[in-house]
Amino acid sequence: MPELRKDPVTGRWVIIATERAKRPNDFPHPQGVPSEEPCPFCEGREDRTPPEIFALRPSKSQPNGPGWQVRVVPSVAPVLRIEGQLDRRGYGAYDVMRGIGAHEVIIESPRHCGDLTELSDEDVHAVLQTYQARLNDLQHDPRFKYVLLFKNHGRAAGGGYIPHVRSQLIATPVTPKRVKEELEGAKQYFHYRDRCLYCDMIAQERESGTRVVCESEHGIVLAPFASRFPFELCLLPKRHSCDFGSTAAAELQGIARTLRQMLTSLKQTLANPPYNYIVHTAPFRRPTSTRAHYWRTIKEDYHWHLEIMPRLTRMAGFEWGTGFYINPTPPEDAVTYLRDQQPQERHGTH
Amino acid sequence: MPELRKDPVTGRWVIIATERAKRPNDFPHPQGVPSEEPCPFCEGREDRTPPEIFALRPSKSQPNGPGWQVRVVPSVAPVLRIEGQLDRRGYGAYDVMRGIGAHEVIIESPRHCGDLTELSDEDVHAVLQTYQARLNDLQHDPRFKYVLLFKNHGRAAGGGYIPHVRSQLIATPVTPKRVKEELEGAKQYFHYRDRCLYCDMIAQERESGTRVVCESEHGIVLAPFASRFPFELCLLPKRHSCDFGSTAAAELQGIARTLRQMLTSLKQTLANPPYNYIVHTAPFRRPTSTRAHYWRTIKEDYHWHLEIMPRLTRMAGFEWGTGFYINPTPPEDAVTYLRDQQPQERHGTH
Repeated sequence: MPELRKDPVTGRWVIIATERAKRPNDFPHPQGVPSEEPCPFCEGREDRTPPEIFALRPSKSQPNGPGWQVRVVPSVAPVLRIEGQLDRRGYGAYDVMRGIGAHEVIIESPRHCGDLTELSDEDVHAVLQTYQARLNDLQHDPRFKYVLLFKNHGRAAGGGYIPHVRSQLIATPVTPKRVKEELEGAKQYFHYRDRCLYCDMIAQERESGTRVVCESEHGIVLAPFASRFPFELCLLPKRHSCDFGSTAAAELQGIARTLRQMLTSLKQTLANPPYNYIVHTAPFRRPTSTRAHYWRTIKEDYHWHLEIMPRLTRMAGFEWGTGFYINPTPPEDAVTYLRDQQPQERHGTH
Repeated sequence: MPELRKDPVTGRWVIIATERAKRPNDFPHPQGVPSEEPCPFCEGREDRTPPEIFALRPSKSQPNGPGWQVRVVPSVAPVLRIEGQLDRRGYGAYDVMRGIGAHEVIIESPRHCGDLTELSDEDVHAVLQTYQARLNDLQHDPRFKYVLLFKNHGRAAGGGYIPHVRSQLIATPVTPKRVKEELEGAKQYFHYRDRCLYCDMIAQERESGTRVVCESEHGIVLAPFASRFPFELCLLPKRHSCDFGSTAAAELQGIARTLRQMLTSLKQTLANPPYNYIVHTAPFRRPTSTRAHYWRTIKEDYHWHLEIMPRLTRMAGFEWGTGFYINPTPPEDAVTYLRDQQPQERHGTH
């Protein structure tokens, strides 16, 4: 059983994967050794994965057979286990709990294709609808506090050997530190100004224009003012909302289009770079009285977004250790390069 | 002039290197293309580096000539500039200041060798003395709040092309977020228990023994209970002290021996892995009254240490984005492998 351990100094939780422990000779990962087996994620090979948890089947086809648009299955190498209770306990100066959680793989296309830019806008919309469906389902499990929805694209970003487009989700019994920090920062700003920090940033960025990559009716893509990494981007809904899971279909469709446009710019500008993206959304709402108040606050001050980090530099250990980042590409420059890839949809200078 | 920009949500500072800006074609870094030039860090080639800031010259030799043991020079590609004032200012929702700071390279041996394990214990002691000397000198500059002392070993850890043993320091006008978090966590623990958290951890780890890699009279090497990375280690002084810069010579000598022993174990166990190490020490003491009180607190509750992170896995974007780490090697297993490399100095089981 994996363990969740808390760092007593910083309060950071770590999953220690006790079961599939790696030995010294297991490092570094062998590079570029794809399996000889046919791709288990393609339509028609549904028996090569564990039974599906969820699928979008527009043609009303049977579970675990062909005829799906997006399909969700449990991870075959889960970092957290779905069965059991948390068993929170202390161990001297330390805190520990059992590694309970969900780890699922979202297969984003029945066809064997490498990334979301090869799909249609409608297909990307279906992917985001699937994210929502899983998020909204998992919040009924009282053991979970958060669902991390993320994509590792390319080997250098932690992607697997099989180049079939997919994302992952991990439901955790604790709210990740980084999410807590964002909630806290947004709350402080709201407390001070009675406005959402993210809404203020969107307004300021639209005014200046120098860090806007693209925008549509519903979504906007910014290169953050304090970008940690070259070509780091942030996709935000223009309408204030703390909860990705409750975004309405029409809005989500617009956001899907903007997401695909952003990924296309990145792919063209940086020659298909490895990247990670992560959906940042509010923690689960719970119907207890303290929680209800907490939620009311978050609803006003937090603003969900999708963060994307191309993995172009490797100077990371120092950054990991200190929280101090050195970015060799100013976000304003990144935007210039990204916009040049999409002249027909260029954003006007304000 | 580089800029320091603050993320308005999380409060994290980022150095935006506006001068040597990288374009899309500059990524990824070309791999393994060492220069044809002779190594500029070797003894006898002092004219290939900027004039030295500091050197240990046991034979009283002249500056910028041969006869040194450790030598410190300005970085030829500094991420921060030494000249000028900070010019802190706001820009809408954002905070920004000029990229003022120091960026120095500590050349740790006159001989062309790859890492500290190839030096003697006395040479490693001289390296640590040099770290101290630079730290203690830079704290007289009122513009600086912190000095980050770190080593990038190997290309995958952000090390340069030239395999000559060296470290770096960056003096910053702000205290890095990660350092602040540690200070805050240690303070809270002290407030609650009236004991240093790090001292408590050392006591608990010596009692259990399962996460102790090695120890000497003055230093102890632990695999942290909530290690984020496989084979992550932490070297701590056994005597409580918040300030690396004020460690006495005899104690520093013992710690140098322990550091070299730790690096030797890692090198043997993991076949010379890339790694980063970072010295975590208290921010500069300043003689204003609020600062004096602040310092008194830190003195009791903080405990300096050296953190080392082998760069074995690449699943980092997700971790960067969420602050949620997945470690496939339990620290207890890592310790077993590391101890096997040093049977003659094996730590007893308590």
